[in-house]
Amino acid sequence: MRSKVVVGFIGAGYAASIHARAYQKVYGVEVELRAVTASRPERAAAFAEQFGVRRVAADVADLLADPAINLVDICAPNHLHADLAVDALNQGKHVIVEKPLTGYFGDQTESASGDANGRHDMVRVALATATRIAETARANGVRLLYGENWLYAPAIQKVRQLMAASGGTILRIQGEESHSGSHAAYAQHWRTAGGGSLLGKGCHPLAAALYLKHEEGLQRDGRPIRPRTVVAEVGHLTRNPAFVAERRKYIQDGWHDVEDWGTMLVTFEDRSIAQVTASDAVLGGIRNCLTVYGSRAVAEANLNPNTTCVAYAPSDDSFANEYISEKIETKAGWSFPSADEEHAQGYSHEIQDFVEAVADDREPVSGAPLACEVVLVTYAAYLSAAEGRRVDLDQFRTAIPAVGDVRKGR
Amino acid sequence: MRSKVVVGFIGAGYAASIHARAYQKVYGVEVELRAVTASRPERAAAFAEQFGVRRVAADVADLLADPAINLVDICAPNHLHADLAVDALNQGKHVIVEKPLTGYFGDQTESASGDANGRHDMVRVALATATRIAETARANGVRLLYGENWLYAPAIQKVRQLMAASGGTILRIQGEESHSGSHAAYAQHWRTAGGGSLLGKGCHPLAAALYLKHEEGLQRDGRPIRPRTVVAEVGHLTRNPAFVAERRKYIQDGWHDVEDWGTMLVTFEDRSIAQVTASDAVLGGIRNCLTVYGSRAVAEANLNPNTTCVAYAPSDDSFANEYISEKIETKAGWSFPSADEEHAQGYSHEIQDFVEAVADDREPVSGAPLACEVVLVTYAAYLSAAEGRRVDLDQFRTAIPAVGDVRKGR
Amino acid sequence: MRSKVVVGFIGAGYAASIHARAYQKVYGVEVELRAVTASRPERAAAFAEQFGVRRVAADVADLLADPAINLVDICAPNHLHADLAVDALNQGKHVIVEKPLTGYFGDQTESASGDANGRHDMVRVALATATRIAETARANGVRLLYGENWLYAPAIQKVRQLMAASGGTILRIQGEESHSGSHAAYAQHWRTAGGGSLLGKGCHPLAAALYLKHEEGLQRDGRPIRPRTVVAEVGHLTRNPAFVAERRKYIQDGWHDVEDWGTMLVTFEDRSIAQVTASDAVLGGIRNCLTVYGSRAVAEANLNPNTTCVAYAPSDDSFANEYISEKIETKAGWSFPSADEEHAQGYSHEIQDFVEAVADDREPVSGAPLACEVVLVTYAAYLSAAEGRRVDLDQFRTAIPAVGDVRKGR
Amino acid sequence: MRSKVVVGFIGAGYAASIHARAYQKVYGVEVELRAVTASRPERAAAFAEQFGVRRVAADVADLLADPAINLVDICAPNHLHADLAVDALNQGKHVIVEKPLTGYFGDQTESASGDANGRHDMVRVALATATRIAETARANGVRLLYGENWLYAPAIQKVRQLMAASGGTILRIQGEESHSGSHAAYAQHWRTAGGGSLLGKGCHPLAAALYLKHEEGLQRDGRPIRPRTVVAEVGHLTRNPAFVAERRKYIQDGWHDVEDWGTMLVTFEDRSIAQVTASDAVLGGIRNCLTVYGSRAVAEANLNPNTTCVAYAPSDDSFANEYISEKIETKAGWSFPSADEEHAQGYSHEIQDFVEAVADDREPVSGAPLACEVVLVTYAAYLSAAEGRRVDLDQFRTAIPAVGDVRKGR
Repeated sequence: MRSKVVVGFIGAGYAASIHARAYQKVYGVEVELRAVTASRPERAAAFAEQFGVRRVAADVADLLADPAINLVDICAPNHLHADLAVDALNQGKHVIVEKPLTGYFGDQTESASGDANGRHDMVRVALATATRIAETARANGVRLLYGENWLYAPAIQKVRQLMAASGGTILRIQGEESHSGSHAAYAQHWRTAGGGSLLGKGCHPLAAALYLKHEEGLQRDGRPIRPRTVVAEVGHLTRNPAFVAERRKYIQDGWHDVEDWGTMLVTFEDRSIAQVTASDAVLGGIRNCLTVYGSRAVAEANLNPNTTCVAYAPSDDSFANEYISEKIETKAGWSFPSADEEHAQGYSHEIQDFVEAVADDREPVSGAPLACEVVLVTYAAYLSAAEGRRVDLDQFRTAIPAVGDVRKGR
Repeated sequence: MRSKVVVGFIGAGYAASIHARAYQKVYGVEVELRAVTASRPERAAAFAEQFGVRRVAADVADLLADPAINLVDICAPNHLHADLAVDALNQGKHVIVEKPLTGYFGDQTESASGDANGRHDMVRVALATATRIAETARANGVRLLYGENWLYAPAIQKVRQLMAASGGTILRIQGEESHSGSHAAYAQHWRTAGGGSLLGKGCHPLAAALYLKHEEGLQRDGRPIRPRTVVAEVGHLTRNPAFVAERRKYIQDGWHDVEDWGTMLVTFEDRSIAQVTASDAVLGGIRNCLTVYGSRAVAEANLNPNTTCVAYAPSDDSFANEYISEKIETKAGWSFPSADEEHAQGYSHEIQDFVEAVADDREPVSGAPLACEVVLVTYAAYLSAAEGRRVDLDQFRTAIPAVGDVRKGR
Repeated sequence: MRSKVVVGFIGAGYAASIHARAYQKVYGVEVELRAVTASRPERAAAFAEQFGVRRVAADVADLLADPAINLVDICAPNHLHADLAVDALNQGKHVIVEKPLTGYFGDQTESASGDANGRHDMVRVALATATRIAETARANGVRLLYGENWLYAPAIQKVRQLMAASGGTILRIQGEESHSGSHAAYAQHWRTAGGGSLLGKGCHPLAAALYLKHEEGLQRDGRPIRPRTVVAEVGHLTRNPAFVAERRKYIQDGWHDVEDWGTMLVTFEDRSIAQVTASDAVLGGIRNCLTVYGSRAVAEANLNPNTTCVAYAPSDDSFANEYISEKIETKAGWSFPSADEEHAQGYSHEIQDFVEAVADDREPVSGAPLACEVVLVTYAAYLSAAEGRRVDLDQFRTAIPAVGDVRKGR
Repeated sequence: MRSKVVVGFIGAGYAASIHARAYQKVYGVEVELRAVTASRPERAAAFAEQFGVRRVAADVADLLADPAINLVDICAPNHLHADLAVDALNQGKHVIVEKPLTGYFGDQTESASGDANGRHDMVRVALATATRIAETARANGVRLLYGENWLYAPAIQKVRQLMAASGGTILRIQGEESHSGSHAAYAQHWRTAGGGSLLGKGCHPLAAALYLKHEEGLQRDGRPIRPRTVVAEVGHLTRNPAFVAERRKYIQDGWHDVEDWGTMLVTFEDRSIAQVTASDAVLGGIRNCLTVYGSRAVAEANLNPNTTCVAYAPSDDSFANEYISEKIETKAGWSFPSADEEHAQGYSHEIQDFVEAVADDREPVSGAPLACEVVLVTYAAYLSAAEGRRVDLDQFRTAIPAVGDVRKGR
């Protein structure tokens, strides 16, 4: 008999809403949305009202004190993830942490910016934090569920299946997430975001690339194929003087100490490559795509845009309030509206997997090892870009949990 | 409190399997798969085993006699729909009938082919049968649920929303369903299929076109916009002498007395047009698409193919048994694999709507009026093609239930 | 030794400009742009200046009197084609006539509209006129060069080659030309245009379809495959009452007595089908596309739009005066700019072929038989739509020149 | 009066054939194909026969001795470019050199491979060679014409115009040329090829990116925007042990000492970025594409594949000998055939520009400064990849000709 899953939300914003809608569509497991807490109580109240959550908790401690809650869903800013997760895990709750798991946030003063710090420390601190979360889960016998929706997107899963069916070798993976920039203030500061485009957006295609190489190795040899080195470059495209001088801006600027573009070139132990790009300086709506070049097949996942639905409007106001796609600057002209975004982006399958993982006491598809490896590669990439050199990942890897280890426990 | 929905399947083939998988993902309503019956009992048994259906009924009567079953799901050949549906409805069950609802099947002798009959009778007989089903449902106070998945496909629903948001007029709709031909023997004979491409495939884009015009009218004026005339042409492309002479055939031939291509040009009461094409002589995998040309927007739904997932294989065997898309002749070259076909084609939402319609005692999105109008337009199209003239629909319409009437009852 | 080609233009508008630019890029034959005449002399003068034409002729007679001119390029409104062509041919000049070759234009009074006439006469008059032009060319031993650019578009030629290479049978052709409507006054009246969308736009995909079936037959059996019947429907989409009531219109209205949408369903003697659609009520920029469904291949030509060049602008004014594509209503959003339109649409190859045909005294790819067959099928389609019935083409065909006959003369 | 252009070919292979066809379509300038020489005389004779070249020269000296020849077209392997070009320029001929202009080729012994050398020397030697060619042209008052077709591709030119029209800033450029690997033996060795994918294929998107930034700067500020640093990674994807173990290989292997994948991340002086990728390990036919992300527009050129022509074949042999696209492994499935490849890839416009540059004594669009800058950035990228660090370009730049300088001389 499957356990009932009783959910407590920490945070009541955009990510929490997506999760809440997904919980409502879970099948085969009984789910109760029990409590929510948020820094602004009125927002928590509205959220509870909208999604039928039973009560608003006074604060995190109040929420964690509820013994019925067995799954805590953390949808808070990046720099709060680690402490919240560790507290919840120590209370014996299973925990969902939204991407990225954690990172380096300096000493939390204005001046402790990403620019100013030695990146070597940054990698070690970020990894230590990630490892602390994973170890806490393990020590308490509960699950860390890593909120990486790309792994669950039907198109990414189809790509994985196609590559597996081909029986070939994945030689190269190219992925990107980009759009015209977050308006959220906390995303512009390293001390709250932990990084810029590379962390906030690049974590998606990076996670998918790591996952695909893990799965390839597990399927063929029983052990995941691991990344070995990273070379990266980051940029501040919105500091281009010609752009700065433009009067009307369609792209978000004002990034304090975080990059608005970055690329990581990751070399795996088998010589295969992942090219991961992320940018906050791309017009035309969100771009979420991944291409896998194999020795016996090519497979491409276009989360956005794709041609499932194609539309045209002669004027910007033609479609009124109808949603087109994330961050598109105009509704005029041709566009590629998202027909069922939460499904296509993987949120439905992610929450279904998390709920089943809790109910059946098993590892999720997206768990601690992947979450930690994303932190490793991304901060090593920051180090690479800061020092202008290729970075070997093995030197940092000792502490983080390995995919193979966890799999054995399945 | 929502009623529990208890399902009995008549038929255990392809369509039933799709439905069964969809029932397993229904949320928010308790569903029990109670019984299944099929002409070949071993097939019913295997189906029950695979999908956790509780028992195999001896026959239809046995299944209908189970008082717990409140929803009968008919996935049988076209010519059996009417009698099965009427029986089930008369037992007070809600009934799902797969598309097309019904049609004209002659006197069931080999010679009573589609070619040989006066088409005027054909329209009247088909409509009378459709009306009989609808009336039986109404008389018994139960629902007729019409299994037209296109109405539920996320891309079609998005097109509807985009057109509504535009506030404009739908001037023209163009839709097609085509592929390289069914291998099923019953599809090749009018007496079992009730028609060829135009009925079996054209019913999908036709239903979507009718639905969109219904909705446009209901939204703007409180009453649906109705089709008024149809001009159609049908063909037997596989009887082309050059094709007949080809040695290797990639396209199904051997159609006994049904067309393998047809187009209907439907003019609505507001002068708008639907161009609906269906063919069993198209290579390259199934083609399911619809474009809506409005006065303030264009919107296009590409159920297949689309670019959500794109793949390439250098050889036909590269992807082994991995599914690519319906009826694709080769897995070599570039292809557009279906990432989550049942969701994209609308099956998940269709079954969710049907289950909720039963549980909440409300009309489904796809119900009797649409089912009957599809029969009307399609058989009038057959009449048009046979006599080589435009056909006025109003002369045949008296008996069928109107969309507006049913809507009022919502 | 190839003859020098000396060109005289009748007309100095849009089509003449396209031709003039194409003459400048002709290679391998010496071309002189000798004279131009136009109803507005100042326009002729500007044209001569822009394209280096040596003189402005006082009138048509003056131009035709120049013995050096051996090629007369008629870029005048449809209703003037026939008399101009006959005059020029009788002077022993080779003649280019822009599409459509000719048609039926009533008695040239306001009331002699397309609506008011019996369509039977219309077909006979249009065909007699077309035949008169073709016969005059033949009698004078000069060439009639039919300005149908689609036949020369690289994508259409590639489609032809692909189908030929496949060795299969063309089972079905689907083509469309559509956009949001001409602003020219003469296009809105039957007495100057000779018809609406079906003639003015449909002539392009129709010609391509006829050409492909001609070529298929010539290649396989040494004789062209001919169209046998046509069923057509036309509409007045812009008379939709909801559209009429809209305040802001993005689609041209005000069509006097010509249709703004039409579809022809043409059945060939081998049972193959051409579905040709044309509309003046389509948003989103010009749509020029053709798909050929064969028994051993599918091939598709997308003259517009295609993905050779893809662009995005956040605002309608972002691209300033840069050309995007014909009739696009906004430059905002995603678009598919034409990178080298005159080449892609076939104009460069058309003029090269015409010049070589004159220089080498050979038939062009696009000549009299095709021009006449387009007139035949289109006016038979008008008859079909007016009378609401299928029309047999053979009854009208006696007089027109046959493709096979001309080919033999190659 | 424009000079007549009299061409002598050195080399009679694939590139020479493309050029020869393009010369035949040149308009407005008289062109004579006067002589050809090749290492295999019978190949030169066949070439002369095929393209109407007047004579086969005994050797290069014989060809250069012909005083009538004013344009020498060098289509020889990379390692021969420099000496051939310098000889021809010193004879007062204008010279076309195919891409890449030149490079580093070691000491021409087997062991002098790309792997074995210090990359610092490599950059200096390659640049000195490039500069020597450019200086020789300048000293002799003749033109160096750099055979980079991408600059002339209509889609790339349209992208340039769109970005200029937008009035915005180019923030980022992403380009790629990839396919499944050259079969030519000389391409597998550094001593004849001068490098691997990054040089042989990456030169195309790199040149386009440099050109677009040059033009942006020239238009806005009167001086080109220059690249400042490069970070690169190269790989040997075909040495992946799993791939090595595969029995049937669809991707070329056997690369001796050159990479089969590389990416350069180029940062310009205005902080904009170019991401250039090249690979010899990509299935699915050649991939030639470039996307430009501007502050006020996005524009994308898809030289291959694009949707101008789309085809499907159920079997690999369906299209017989008909050309589909470069390096496609199968003709089965969906494909994107090249409709007029020489035009779409820019060859027609390139040769037209080169001929006009000679005839009118002006700089070509693609000349010495761009050719040298491609050498600079590419070899700096090789240095970066070898040493695993970011490389500053300014240290190497002193000698090479600047775009601005040449432009002033226009």
